[in-house]
Amino acid sequence: MNLQEYFDRCVVEINRALDNLLPPEKTAPETIHKAMRYSVFAGGKRLRPVLTIASGEAFGGSLENLLPVACAIELIHTYSLIHDDLPALDNDDLRRGRPTCHKVFGEAMAILAGDALLTRAFQILADEGGLPDAQRILILREVSAAAGTINALIGGQVLDIQSEGKDIDKAGLEQIHRGKTGAMIRVAVRTGAIVAGVGGSTLDKLTVYAEKVGLAFQIADDLLDVTATSEQLGKTAGKDAAVNKATYPAVYGIETSKKLALHLSNEAVEALSRLDTNTEVLTSLARFVVDRNS
Amino acid sequence: MNLQEYFDRCVVEINRALDNLLPPEKTAPETIHKAMRYSVFAGGKRLRPVLTIASGEAFGGSLENLLPVACAIELIHTYSLIHDDLPALDNDDLRRGRPTCHKVFGEAMAILAGDALLTRAFQILADEGGLPDAQRILILREVSAAAGTINALIGGQVLDIQSEGKDIDKAGLEQIHRGKTGAMIRVAVRTGAIVAGVGGSTLDKLTVYAEKVGLAFQIADDLLDVTATSEQLGKTAGKDAAVNKATYPAVYGIETSKKLALHLSNEAVEALSRLDTNTEVLTSLARFVVDRNS
Repeated sequence: MNLQEYFDRCVVEINRALDNLLPPEKTAPETIHKAMRYSVFAGGKRLRPVLTIASGEAFGGSLENLLPVACAIELIHTYSLIHDDLPALDNDDLRRGRPTCHKVFGEAMAILAGDALLTRAFQILADEGGLPDAQRILILREVSAAAGTINALIGGQVLDIQSEGKDIDKAGLEQIHRGKTGAMIRVAVRTGAIVAGVGGSTLDKLTVYAEKVGLAFQIADDLLDVTATSEQLGKTAGKDAAVNKATYPAVYGIETSKKLALHLSNEAVEALSRLDTNTEVLTSLARFVVDRNS
Repeated sequence: MNLQEYFDRCVVEINRALDNLLPPEKTAPETIHKAMRYSVFAGGKRLRPVLTIASGEAFGGSLENLLPVACAIELIHTYSLIHDDLPALDNDDLRRGRPTCHKVFGEAMAILAGDALLTRAFQILADEGGLPDAQRILILREVSAAAGTINALIGGQVLDIQSEGKDIDKAGLEQIHRGKTGAMIRVAVRTGAIVAGVGGSTLDKLTVYAEKVGLAFQIADDLLDVTATSEQLGKTAGKDAAVNKATYPAVYGIETSKKLALHLSNEAVEALSRLDTNTEVLTSLARFVVDRNS
Protein backbone atom coordinates (compact mmCIF):
# COMPACT_ATOMS: atom_id res chain seq x y z
CA MET A 1 0.00 0.00 0.00
CA ASN A 2 1.35 3.36 -1.03
CA LEU A 3 -0.06 6.09 1.21
CA GLN A 4 0.48 8.84 -1.32
CA GLU A 5 -1.59 6.96 -3.90
CA TYR A 6 -4.34 6.24 -1.39
CA PHE A 7 -4.34 9.86 -0.27
CA ASP A 8 -4.44 11.20 -3.82
CA ARG A 9 -7.29 8.88 -4.77
CA CYS A 10 -9.27 9.99 -1.70
CA VAL A 11 -8.64 13.66 -2.38
CA VAL A 12 -10.00 13.36 -5.93
CA GLU A 13 -13.19 11.79 -4.55
CA ILE A 14 -13.45 14.31 -1.70
CA ASN A 15 -13.04 17.28 -4.02
CA ARG A 16 -15.61 15.91 -6.43
CA ALA A 17 -18.06 15.32 -3.56
CA LEU A 18 -17.44 18.78 -2.10
CA ASP A 19 -18.10 20.30 -5.50
CA ASN A 20 -21.44 18.47 -5.64
CA LEU A 21 -22.35 19.31 -2.06
CA LEU A 22 -21.68 23.06 -2.19
CA PRO A 23 -24.13 25.41 -3.92
CA PRO A 24 -22.86 26.43 -7.39
CA GLU A 25 -21.26 29.86 -7.64
CA LYS A 26 -24.07 30.99 -9.91
CA THR A 27 -26.77 30.20 -7.36
CA ALA A 28 -28.01 33.41 -5.71
CA PRO A 29 -26.71 35.04 -3.62
CA GLU A 30 -23.58 34.42 -5.69
CA THR A 31 -21.04 36.19 -3.47
CA ILE A 32 -21.50 33.94 -0.46
CA HIS A 33 -21.27 30.79 -2.56
CA LYS A 34 -18.12 32.13 -4.20
CA ALA A 35 -16.62 32.88 -0.78
CA MET A 36 -17.52 29.41 0.52
CA ARG A 37 -15.98 27.72 -2.49
CA TYR A 38 -12.92 29.96 -2.45
CA SER A 39 -11.98 28.73 1.00
CA VAL A 40 -13.04 25.12 0.55
CA PHE A 41 -11.02 24.79 -2.66
CA ALA A 42 -7.92 26.56 -1.40
CA GLY A 43 -5.61 23.55 -1.50
CA GLY A 44 -6.24 22.11 1.94
CA LYS A 45 -4.53 18.83 2.81
CA ARG A 46 -7.90 17.08 3.37
CA LEU A 47 -6.37 15.16 6.28
CA ARG A 48 -9.62 15.00 8.25
CA PRO A 49 -11.83 13.63 5.46
CA VAL A 50 -9.10 11.19 4.45
CA LEU A 51 -9.03 9.96 8.05
CA THR A 52 -12.82 9.47 7.95
CA ILE A 53 -12.58 7.46 4.74
CA ALA A 54 -9.58 5.42 5.91
CA SER A 55 -11.23 4.67 9.22
CA GLY A 56 -14.51 3.70 7.59
CA GLU A 57 -12.90 1.59 4.87
CA ALA A 58 -10.81 -0.27 7.47
CA PHE A 59 -14.10 -1.64 8.78
CA GLY A 60 -15.85 -2.22 5.45
CA GLY A 61 -17.73 1.10 5.16
CA SER A 62 -18.63 2.17 1.62
CA LEU A 63 -17.05 5.23 0.06
CA GLU A 64 -20.53 6.38 -0.98
CA ASN A 65 -21.71 6.56 2.62
CA LEU A 66 -18.41 7.89 3.96
CA LEU A 67 -18.01 10.82 1.57
CA PRO A 68 -20.83 13.06 2.84
CA VAL A 69 -19.63 12.67 6.44
CA ALA A 70 -16.02 13.27 5.41
CA CYS A 71 -17.04 16.38 3.47
CA ALA A 72 -19.15 17.77 6.32
CA ILE A 73 -16.14 17.49 8.62
CA GLU A 74 -13.95 19.24 6.07
CA LEU A 75 -16.51 22.07 5.79
CA ILE A 76 -16.48 22.53 9.56
CA HIS A 77 -12.68 22.61 9.48
CA THR A 78 -12.78 25.23 6.71
CA TYR A 79 -15.32 27.38 8.55
CA SER A 80 -13.10 27.33 11.64
CA LEU A 81 -10.10 28.46 9.58
CA ILE A 82 -12.06 31.32 7.97
CA HIS A 83 -13.20 32.60 11.36
CA ASP A 84 -9.77 32.06 12.98
CA ASP A 85 -8.11 34.10 10.25
CA LEU A 86 -10.38 37.13 10.83
CA PRO A 87 -8.77 40.40 12.00
CA ALA A 88 -10.52 40.08 15.38
CA LEU A 89 -8.97 36.65 15.91
CA ASP A 90 -5.60 35.63 14.43
CA ASN A 91 -5.61 38.34 11.77
CA ASP A 92 -3.97 36.22 9.08
CA ASP A 93 -3.69 37.53 5.53
CA LEU A 94 -2.38 34.31 4.04
CA ARG A 95 -3.65 30.74 4.15
CA ARG A 96 -2.34 27.91 1.99
CA GLY A 97 -0.42 30.44 -0.07
CA ARG A 98 -3.47 32.51 -0.97
CA PRO A 99 -5.10 35.60 0.54
CA THR A 100 -7.53 34.62 3.31
CA CYS A 101 -11.29 34.75 2.76
CA HIS A 102 -11.78 38.15 4.40
CA LYS A 103 -8.92 39.67 2.35
CA VAL A 104 -10.74 38.71 -0.85
CA PHE A 105 -14.42 39.01 0.10
CA GLY A 106 -14.34 41.40 3.05
CA GLU A 107 -14.93 40.68 6.72
CA ALA A 108 -18.73 40.59 6.60
CA MET A 109 -18.79 38.02 3.82
CA ALA A 110 -16.05 35.94 5.50
CA ILE A 111 -18.03 35.79 8.74
CA LEU A 112 -21.16 34.75 6.84
CA ALA A 113 -19.26 32.26 4.66
CA GLY A 114 -17.98 30.57 7.82
CA ASP A 115 -21.49 30.50 9.26
CA ALA A 116 -22.78 29.07 6.00
CA LEU A 117 -20.19 26.28 5.83
CA LEU A 118 -20.99 25.24 9.39
CA THR A 119 -24.71 25.24 8.63
CA ARG A 120 -24.25 23.38 5.35
CA ALA A 121 -22.17 20.75 7.15
CA PHE A 122 -25.05 19.90 9.47
CA GLN A 123 -27.47 19.95 6.56
CA ILE A 124 -25.29 17.44 4.71
CA LEU A 125 -25.13 15.17 7.76
CA ALA A 126 -28.94 15.29 8.05
CA ASP A 127 -29.64 15.02 4.33
CA GLU A 128 -27.04 13.33 2.18
CA GLY A 129 -26.01 9.73 1.56
CA GLY A 130 -27.89 6.58 2.33
CA LEU A 131 -27.33 6.08 6.06
CA PRO A 132 -30.12 4.79 8.31
CA ASP A 133 -31.59 7.47 10.60
CA ALA A 134 -30.13 5.98 13.78
CA GLN A 135 -26.56 6.16 12.44
CA ARG A 136 -27.18 9.64 11.08
CA ILE A 137 -28.29 10.85 14.52
CA LEU A 138 -25.27 9.25 16.19
CA ILE A 139 -22.97 11.04 13.74
CA LEU A 140 -24.79 14.37 14.19
CA ARG A 141 -24.34 14.03 17.95
CA GLU A 142 -20.64 13.26 17.62
CA VAL A 143 -19.91 16.06 15.16
CA SER A 144 -21.92 18.76 16.94
CA ALA A 145 -20.19 17.89 20.23
CA ALA A 146 -16.73 17.98 18.60
CA ALA A 147 -17.45 21.37 17.02
CA GLY A 148 -18.70 22.86 20.28
CA THR A 149 -17.26 24.60 23.32
CA ILE A 150 -16.56 21.83 25.86
CA ASN A 151 -13.33 19.93 25.13
CA ALA A 152 -14.03 20.79 21.53
CA LEU A 153 -13.22 23.01 18.55
CA ILE A 154 -14.62 26.37 19.65
CA GLY A 155 -13.53 25.86 23.25
CA GLY A 156 -9.96 25.20 22.09
CA GLN A 157 -10.01 28.34 20.00
CA VAL A 158 -11.21 30.36 23.02
CA LEU A 159 -8.40 28.98 25.21
CA ASP A 160 -5.90 29.61 22.43
CA ILE A 161 -6.90 33.28 22.17
CA GLN A 162 -6.85 33.67 25.93
CA SER A 163 -3.39 32.08 26.20
CA GLU A 164 -1.68 34.61 23.90
CA GLY A 165 1.08 36.42 25.71
CA LYS A 166 0.57 34.37 28.87
CA ASP A 167 2.68 31.67 30.46
CA ILE A 168 0.91 28.41 30.02
CA ASP A 169 1.67 25.05 31.64
CA LYS A 170 1.84 21.68 29.94
CA ALA A 171 -1.67 20.64 30.97
CA GLY A 172 -3.11 23.93 29.67
CA LEU A 173 -1.28 23.53 26.39
CA GLU A 174 -2.56 20.00 25.87
CA GLN A 175 -6.09 21.17 26.64
CA ILE A 176 -5.90 23.85 23.93
CA HIS A 177 -4.62 21.40 21.37
CA ARG A 178 -7.10 18.67 22.29
CA GLY A 179 -9.89 21.14 21.61
CA LYS A 180 -8.53 23.14 18.72
CA THR A 181 -7.35 20.29 16.51
CA GLY A 182 -7.86 17.13 18.54
CA ALA A 183 -11.65 17.13 18.70
CA MET A 184 -12.26 17.31 14.96
CA ILE A 185 -9.55 14.73 14.14
CA ARG A 186 -11.00 12.46 16.79
CA VAL A 187 -14.51 12.81 15.36
CA ALA A 188 -13.23 12.36 11.80
CA VAL A 189 -11.87 8.95 12.74
CA ARG A 190 -14.81 7.96 14.93
CA THR A 191 -17.55 8.88 12.47
CA GLY A 192 -15.85 6.93 9.68
CA ALA A 193 -16.04 3.85 11.88
CA ILE A 194 -19.63 4.64 12.91
CA VAL A 195 -20.63 4.77 9.23
CA ALA A 196 -19.18 1.26 8.97
CA GLY A 197 -21.33 0.15 11.91
CA VAL A 198 -18.50 0.02 14.46
CA GLY A 199 -19.24 0.68 18.14
CA GLY A 200 -18.36 -0.58 21.62
CA SER A 201 -14.79 -1.50 22.54
CA THR A 202 -13.58 -1.44 18.94
CA LEU A 203 -14.63 2.20 18.68
CA ASP A 204 -12.94 2.89 22.03
CA LYS A 205 -9.65 1.44 20.83
CA LEU A 206 -9.88 3.37 17.59
CA THR A 207 -10.53 6.52 19.61
CA VAL A 208 -7.19 6.05 21.40
CA TYR A 209 -5.57 6.01 17.96
CA ALA A 210 -7.48 9.13 16.92
CA GLU A 211 -6.52 11.10 20.02
CA LYS A 212 -2.82 10.24 19.68
CA VAL A 213 -2.85 11.13 15.98
CA GLY A 214 -4.59 14.42 16.70
CA LEU A 215 -2.07 15.54 19.29
CA ALA A 216 0.88 14.31 17.21
CA PHE A 217 -0.47 16.27 14.25
CA GLN A 218 -0.73 19.48 16.23
CA ILE A 219 2.76 19.16 17.73
CA ALA A 220 4.09 18.60 14.20
CA ASP A 221 2.15 21.70 13.16
CA ASP A 222 3.71 23.75 15.95
CA LEU A 223 7.15 22.46 14.93
CA LEU A 224 6.59 23.35 11.28
CA ASP A 225 5.74 26.89 12.31
CA VAL A 226 9.26 27.11 13.78
CA THR A 227 11.27 25.05 11.31
CA ALA A 228 9.55 25.47 7.92
CA THR A 229 9.56 28.46 5.59
CA SER A 230 6.49 30.56 4.83
CA GLU A 231 6.64 29.22 1.29
CA GLN A 232 6.43 25.62 2.48
CA LEU A 233 3.56 26.43 4.81
CA GLY A 234 1.58 28.73 2.54
CA LYS A 235 1.18 31.00 5.54
CA THR A 236 3.43 33.23 7.60
CA ALA A 237 5.97 31.00 9.38
CA GLY A 238 7.13 31.93 12.87
CA LYS A 239 3.82 33.63 13.61
CA ASP A 240 3.12 31.55 16.74
CA ALA A 241 6.28 32.78 18.45
CA ALA A 242 5.72 36.35 17.23
CA VAL A 243 2.34 36.58 18.96
CA ASN A 244 3.55 34.44 21.86
CA LYS A 245 1.14 31.57 21.22
CA ALA A 246 1.05 28.51 23.42
CA THR A 247 2.93 25.87 21.39
CA TYR A 248 4.83 22.66 22.10
CA PRO A 249 8.21 24.04 20.96
CA ALA A 250 7.70 27.08 23.22
CA VAL A 251 6.87 24.96 26.26
CA TYR A 252 8.99 21.81 25.67
CA GLY A 253 11.66 23.00 23.23
CA ILE A 254 12.12 21.71 19.68
CA GLU A 255 13.92 18.43 20.38
CA THR A 256 11.57 17.24 23.10
CA SER A 257 8.58 18.24 20.95
CA LYS A 258 9.88 16.12 18.08
CA LYS A 259 10.31 13.15 20.42
CA LEU A 260 6.83 13.67 21.85
CA ALA A 261 5.25 13.75 18.39
CA LEU A 262 7.07 10.58 17.37
CA HIS A 263 6.13 8.87 20.61
CA LEU A 264 2.45 9.74 20.11
CA SER A 265 2.59 8.49 16.52
CA ASN A 266 4.04 5.17 17.79
CA GLU A 267 1.36 4.92 20.45
CA ALA A 268 -1.28 5.49 17.79
CA VAL A 269 0.11 2.62 15.74
CA GLU A 270 0.21 0.46 18.84
CA ALA A 271 -3.47 1.19 19.51
CA LEU A 272 -4.24 -0.11 16.02
CA SER A 273 -2.54 -3.42 16.77
CA ARG A 274 -5.34 -4.16 19.20
CA LEU A 275 -7.91 -4.00 16.38
CA ASP A 276 -8.91 -7.07 14.44
CA THR A 277 -8.91 -5.59 10.94
CA ASN A 278 -6.54 -4.34 8.23
CA THR A 279 -5.14 -1.09 9.60
CA GLU A 280 -2.39 -0.55 7.07
CA VAL A 281 -3.69 2.80 5.82
CA LEU A 282 -4.40 4.10 9.32
CA THR A 283 -0.87 3.09 10.34
CA SER A 284 0.64 4.99 7.42
CA LEU A 285 -1.49 8.01 8.28
CA ALA A 286 -0.19 8.01 11.86
CA ARG A 287 3.36 8.05 10.50
CA PHE A 288 2.49 10.70 7.92
CA VAL A 289 1.17 13.30 10.36
CA VAL A 290 4.58 13.63 12.04
CA ASP A 291 6.61 13.15 8.87
CA ARG A 292 5.16 15.83 6.61
CA ASN A 293 6.93 19.04 5.66
CA SER A 294 3.90 21.30 5.16
CA MET B 1 -57.78 32.60 25.64
CA ASN B 2 -55.62 35.54 26.59
CA LEU B 3 -52.57 35.73 24.32
CA GLN B 4 -50.48 37.63 26.82
CA GLU B 5 -51.00 34.92 29.42
CA TYR B 6 -50.21 32.16 26.92
CA PHE B 7 -47.12 34.05 25.78
CA ASP B 8 -45.91 34.67 29.34
CA ARG B 9 -46.41 31.03 30.30
CA CYS B 10 -44.45 29.89 27.24
CA VAL B 11 -41.63 32.34 27.88
CA VAL B 12 -41.18 31.04 31.43
CA GLU B 13 -40.86 27.49 30.08
CA ILE B 14 -38.59 28.55 27.22
CA ASN B 15 -36.26 30.46 29.51
CA ARG B 16 -36.08 27.56 31.94
CA ALA B 17 -35.33 25.16 29.10
CA LEU B 18 -32.70 27.47 27.60
CA ASP B 19 -31.04 27.70 30.99
CA ASN B 20 -30.87 23.91 31.16
CA LEU B 21 -29.69 23.54 27.58
CA LEU B 22 -26.84 26.06 27.69
CA PRO B 23 -23.55 25.19 29.41
CA PRO B 24 -23.33 26.82 32.87
CA GLU B 25 -21.21 29.97 33.11
CA LYS B 26 -18.77 28.16 35.37
CA THR B 27 -18.08 25.43 32.84
CA ALA B 28 -14.70 26.02 31.16
CA PRO B 29 -13.99 27.97 29.06
CA GLU B 30 -16.13 30.35 31.12
CA THR B 31 -15.92 33.42 28.89
CA ILE B 32 -17.62 31.84 25.90
CA HIS B 33 -20.42 30.42 28.01
CA LYS B 34 -20.92 33.83 29.64
CA ALA B 35 -21.06 35.47 26.21
CA MET B 36 -23.56 32.90 24.92
CA ARG B 37 -25.81 33.35 27.96
CA TYR B 38 -25.46 37.12 27.88
CA SER B 39 -27.02 37.28 24.43
CA VAL B 40 -29.56 34.50 24.91
CA PHE B 41 -30.87 36.08 28.11
CA ALA B 42 -30.97 39.63 26.83
CA GLY B 43 -34.72 40.05 26.96
CA GLY B 44 -35.65 38.74 23.52
CA LYS B 45 -39.33 38.50 22.69
CA ARG B 46 -39.10 34.70 22.11
CA LEU B 47 -41.54 35.01 19.22
CA ARG B 48 -40.02 32.13 17.25
CA PRO B 49 -40.02 29.55 20.06
CA VAL B 50 -43.53 30.63 21.08
CA LEU B 51 -44.63 30.03 17.47
CA THR B 52 -43.08 26.54 17.59
CA ILE B 53 -44.92 25.72 20.79
CA ALA B 54 -48.22 27.22 19.64
CA SER B 55 -48.02 25.41 16.33
CA GLY B 56 -47.15 22.09 17.98
CA GLU B 57 -49.78 22.40 20.70
CA ALA B 58 -52.44 23.21 18.10
CA PHE B 59 -51.93 19.68 16.80
CA GLY B 60 -51.51 17.91 20.14
CA GLY B 61 -47.70 18.00 20.43
CA SER B 62 -46.28 17.81 23.96
CA LEU B 63 -44.48 20.78 25.49
CA GLU B 64 -41.70 18.40 26.55
CA ASN B 65 -40.95 17.46 22.94
CA LEU B 66 -41.52 20.96 21.60
CA LEU B 67 -39.21 22.84 23.97
CA PRO B 68 -35.85 21.57 22.70
CA VAL B 69 -36.82 22.38 19.10
CA ALA B 70 -38.18 25.79 20.12
CA CYS B 71 -34.97 26.54 22.03
CA ALA B 72 -32.70 25.43 19.19
CA ILE B 73 -34.51 27.85 16.88
CA GLU B 74 -34.13 30.66 19.42
CA LEU B 75 -30.38 29.93 19.69
CA ILE B 76 -30.02 30.18 15.92
CA HIS B 77 -31.92 33.46 15.99
CA THR B 78 -29.61 34.74 18.75
CA TYR B 79 -26.46 33.67 16.89
CA SER B 80 -27.68 35.54 13.81
CA LEU B 81 -28.24 38.70 15.85
CA ILE B 82 -24.78 38.51 17.45
CA HIS B 83 -23.10 38.18 14.06
CA ASP B 84 -25.35 40.82 12.43
CA ASP B 85 -24.44 43.30 15.16
CA LEU B 86 -20.68 42.94 14.56
CA PRO B 87 -18.74 46.00 13.37
CA ALA B 88 -18.09 44.33 10.00
CA LEU B 89 -21.83 43.88 9.48
CA ASP B 90 -24.46 46.23 10.95
CA ASN B 91 -22.11 47.66 13.60
CA ASP B 92 -24.77 47.96 16.30
CA ASP B 93 -23.79 48.90 19.84
CA LEU B 94 -27.20 48.36 21.35
CA ARG B 95 -29.61 45.43 21.26
CA ARG B 96 -32.68 45.08 23.42
CA GLY B 97 -31.54 48.04 25.49
CA ARG B 98 -28.16 46.51 26.37
CA PRO B 99 -24.68 46.72 24.85
CA THR B 100 -24.28 44.13 22.08
CA CYS B 101 -22.23 40.97 22.65
CA HIS B 102 -19.06 42.31 20.99
CA LYS B 103 -19.24 45.53 23.02
CA VAL B 104 -19.12 43.49 26.23
CA PHE B 105 -16.95 40.51 25.30
CA GLY B 106 -14.95 41.81 22.32
CA GLU B 107 -15.29 40.91 18.67
CA ALA B 108 -13.40 37.63 18.79
CA MET B 109 -15.56 36.26 21.58
CA ALA B 110 -18.75 37.50 19.92
CA ILE B 111 -17.86 35.72 16.68
CA LEU B 112 -17.13 32.52 18.59
CA ALA B 113 -20.23 32.86 20.79
CA GLY B 114 -22.36 33.07 17.63
CA ASP B 115 -20.61 30.03 16.20
CA ALA B 116 -21.14 28.19 19.47
CA LEU B 117 -24.88 28.96 19.65
CA LEU B 118 -25.37 27.73 16.08
CA THR B 119 -23.43 24.56 16.86
CA ARG B 120 -25.26 23.99 20.14
CA ALA B 121 -28.59 24.40 18.35
CA PHE B 122 -27.83 21.49 16.04
CA GLN B 123 -26.53 19.46 18.96
CA ILE B 124 -29.81 20.03 20.82
CA LEU B 125 -31.83 18.97 17.78
CA ALA B 126 -29.76 15.78 17.51
CA ASP B 127 -29.62 15.05 21.22
CA GLU B 128 -32.41 16.42 23.37
CA GLY B 129 -36.00 15.44 24.01
CA GLY B 130 -37.73 12.17 23.26
CA LEU B 131 -38.46 12.38 19.54
CA PRO B 132 -38.12 9.33 17.29
CA ASP B 133 -35.06 9.44 15.00
CA ALA B 134 -37.11 9.90 11.82
CA GLN B 135 -38.80 13.05 13.15
CA ARG B 136 -35.51 14.32 14.48
CA ILE B 137 -33.91 14.00 11.06
CA LEU B 138 -36.85 15.74 9.39
CA ILE B 139 -36.49 18.64 11.80
CA LEU B 140 -32.72 18.82 11.35
CA ARG B 141 -33.24 19.01 7.59
CA GLU B 142 -35.81 21.77 7.92
CA VAL B 143 -33.80 23.86 10.36
CA SER B 144 -30.45 23.53 8.57
CA ALA B 145 -32.09 24.55 5.29
CA ALA B 146 -33.80 27.55 6.89
CA ALA B 147 -30.53 28.71 8.48
CA GLY B 148 -28.61 28.39 5.20
CA THR B 149 -27.88 30.50 2.14
CA ILE B 150 -30.62 29.64 -0.38
CA ASN B 151 -33.91 31.43 0.34
CA ALA B 152 -32.80 31.30 3.94
CA LEU B 153 -31.32 33.16 6.92
CA ILE B 154 -27.71 33.71 5.80
CA GLY B 155 -28.74 34.35 2.21
CA GLY B 156 -31.14 37.06 3.38
CA GLN B 157 -28.41 38.65 5.43
CA VAL B 158 -26.08 38.67 2.41
CA LEU B 159 -28.73 40.33 0.22
CA ASP B 160 -29.47 42.81 2.99
CA ILE B 161 -25.82 43.87 3.24
CA GLN B 162 -25.51 44.10 -0.53
CA SER B 163 -28.66 46.24 -0.79
CA GLU B 164 -27.38 48.99 1.49
CA GLY B 165 -27.23 52.29 -0.33
CA LYS B 166 -28.74 50.78 -3.47
CA ASP B 167 -32.15 51.18 -5.05
CA ILE B 168 -34.03 47.98 -4.60
CA ASP B 169 -37.30 46.88 -6.20
CA LYS B 170 -40.27 45.27 -4.49
CA ALA B 171 -39.35 41.74 -5.50
CA GLY B 172 -35.81 42.20 -4.23
CA LEU B 173 -37.07 43.59 -0.95
CA GLU B 174 -39.42 40.66 -0.41
CA GLN B 175 -36.61 38.24 -1.17
CA ILE B 176 -34.40 39.81 1.51
CA HIS B 177 -37.16 39.65 4.10
CA ARG B 178 -38.21 36.11 3.20
CA GLY B 179 -34.65 35.02 3.86
CA LYS B 180 -33.63 37.22 6.75
CA THR B 181 -36.68 36.76 8.98
CA GLY B 182 -39.12 34.69 6.96
CA ALA B 183 -37.17 31.46 6.79
CA MET B 184 -36.69 31.05 10.55
CA ILE B 185 -40.28 32.03 11.37
CA ARG B 186 -41.50 29.60 8.73
CA VAL B 187 -39.38 26.79 10.16
CA ALA B 188 -40.41 27.66 13.73
CA VAL B 189 -44.04 27.06 12.79
CA ARG B 190 -43.36 24.01 10.62
CA THR B 191 -41.15 22.16 13.10
CA GLY B 192 -43.69 22.62 15.87
CA ALA B 193 -46.23 20.83 13.69
CA ILE B 194 -43.69 18.19 12.67
CA VAL B 195 -43.05 17.41 16.35
CA ALA B 196 -46.82 16.84 16.61
CA GLY B 197 -46.67 14.41 13.70
CA VAL B 198 -48.24 16.75 11.14
CA GLY B 199 -47.29 16.43 7.46
CA GLY B 200 -48.84 16.53 3.99
CA SER B 201 -51.46 19.09 3.05
CA THR B 202 -52.04 20.19 6.65
CA LEU B 203 -48.39 21.18 6.88
CA ASP B 204 -48.67 22.95 3.53
CA LYS B 205 -51.61 25.03 4.75
CA LEU B 206 -49.84 25.85 7.97
CA THR B 207 -46.82 26.92 5.92
CA VAL B 208 -48.94 29.51 4.13
CA TYR B 209 -49.82 30.90 7.57
CA ALA B 210 -46.16 30.89 8.59
CA GLU B 211 -44.98 32.71 5.49
CA LYS B 212 -47.62 35.42 5.83
CA VAL B 213 -46.82 35.87 9.53
CA GLY B 214 -43.11 36.08 8.80
CA LEU B 215 -43.47 38.80 6.20
CA ALA B 216 -46.05 40.70 8.28
CA PHE B 217 -43.66 40.58 11.23
CA GLN B 218 -40.78 42.00 9.21
CA ILE B 219 -42.88 44.81 7.73
CA ALA B 220 -44.02 45.69 11.25
CA ASP B 221 -40.36 45.62 12.29
CA ASP B 222 -39.43 48.00 9.48
CA LEU B 223 -42.29 50.29 10.51
CA LEU B 224 -41.24 50.29 14.15
CA ASP B 225 -37.76 51.39 13.12
CA VAL B 226 -39.38 54.49 11.64
CA THR B 227 -42.18 55.16 14.11
CA ALA B 228 -40.93 53.94 17.51
CA THR B 229 -38.37 55.51 19.82
CA SER B 230 -34.98 53.98 20.59
CA GLU B 231 -36.20 53.46 24.12
CA GLN B 232 -39.18 51.40 22.94
CA LEU B 233 -37.02 49.32 20.62
CA GLY B 234 -34.02 48.86 22.88
CA LYS B 235 -31.87 49.66 19.87
CA THR B 236 -31.12 52.72 17.80
CA ALA B 237 -34.34 53.72 16.02
CA GLY B 238 -34.17 55.16 12.52
CA LYS B 239 -31.02 53.23 11.77
CA ASP B 240 -32.43 51.53 8.67
CA ALA B 241 -33.01 54.86 6.95
CA ALA B 242 -29.68 56.25 8.15
CA VAL B 243 -27.73 53.47 6.42
CA ASN B 244 -30.20 53.39 3.53
CA LYS B 245 -31.41 49.85 4.18
CA ALA B 246 -34.00 48.17 2.00
CA THR B 247 -37.21 48.41 4.03
CA TYR B 248 -40.94 48.40 3.34
CA PRO B 249 -41.50 52.01 4.46
CA ALA B 250 -38.64 53.11 2.20
CA VAL B 251 -40.04 51.30 -0.83
CA TYR B 252 -43.81 51.48 -0.23
CA GLY B 253 -44.18 54.39 2.20
CA ILE B 254 -45.52 54.13 5.75
CA GLU B 255 -49.24 53.98 5.07
CA THR B 256 -49.06 51.34 2.35
CA SER B 257 -46.65 49.30 4.49
CA LYS B 258 -49.14 49.35 7.37
CA LYS B 259 -51.89 48.15 5.05
CA LEU B 260 -49.67 45.44 3.63
CA ALA B 261 -48.77 44.15 7.08
CA LEU B 262 -52.42 44.08 8.11
CA HIS B 263 -53.41 42.38 4.89
CA LEU B 264 -50.77 39.67 5.40
CA SER B 265 -51.90 39.17 8.97
CA ASN B 266 -55.48 38.69 7.72
CA GLU B 267 -54.34 36.25 5.07
CA ALA B 268 -52.47 34.29 7.73
CA VAL B 269 -55.63 34.01 9.80
CA GLU B 270 -57.55 32.97 6.70
CA ALA B 271 -55.02 30.19 6.04
CA LEU B 272 -55.73 28.87 9.54
CA SER B 273 -59.44 28.63 8.80
CA ARG B 274 -58.63 25.82 6.38
CA LEU B 275 -57.15 23.73 9.21
CA ASP B 276 -59.25 21.29 11.17
CA THR B 277 -57.99 22.07 14.67
CA ASN B 278 -58.12 24.75 17.35
CA THR B 279 -56.07 27.62 15.97
CA GLU B 280 -57.03 30.28 18.49
CA VAL B 281 -53.49 30.91 19.72
CA LEU B 282 -52.02 30.94 16.22
CA THR B 283 -54.71 33.44 15.20
CA SER B 284 -53.86 35.72 18.09
CA LEU B 285 -50.18 35.46 17.22
CA ALA B 286 -50.87 36.55 13.64
CA ARG B 287 -52.66 39.62 15.01
CA PHE B 288 -49.94 40.27 17.56
CA VAL B 289 -47.02 40.45 15.11
CA VAL B 290 -48.52 43.53 13.43
CA ASP B 291 -49.94 45.05 16.60
CA ARG B 292 -46.89 45.20 18.85
CA ASN B 293 -45.06 48.38 19.79
CA SER B 294 -41.54 46.96 20.30
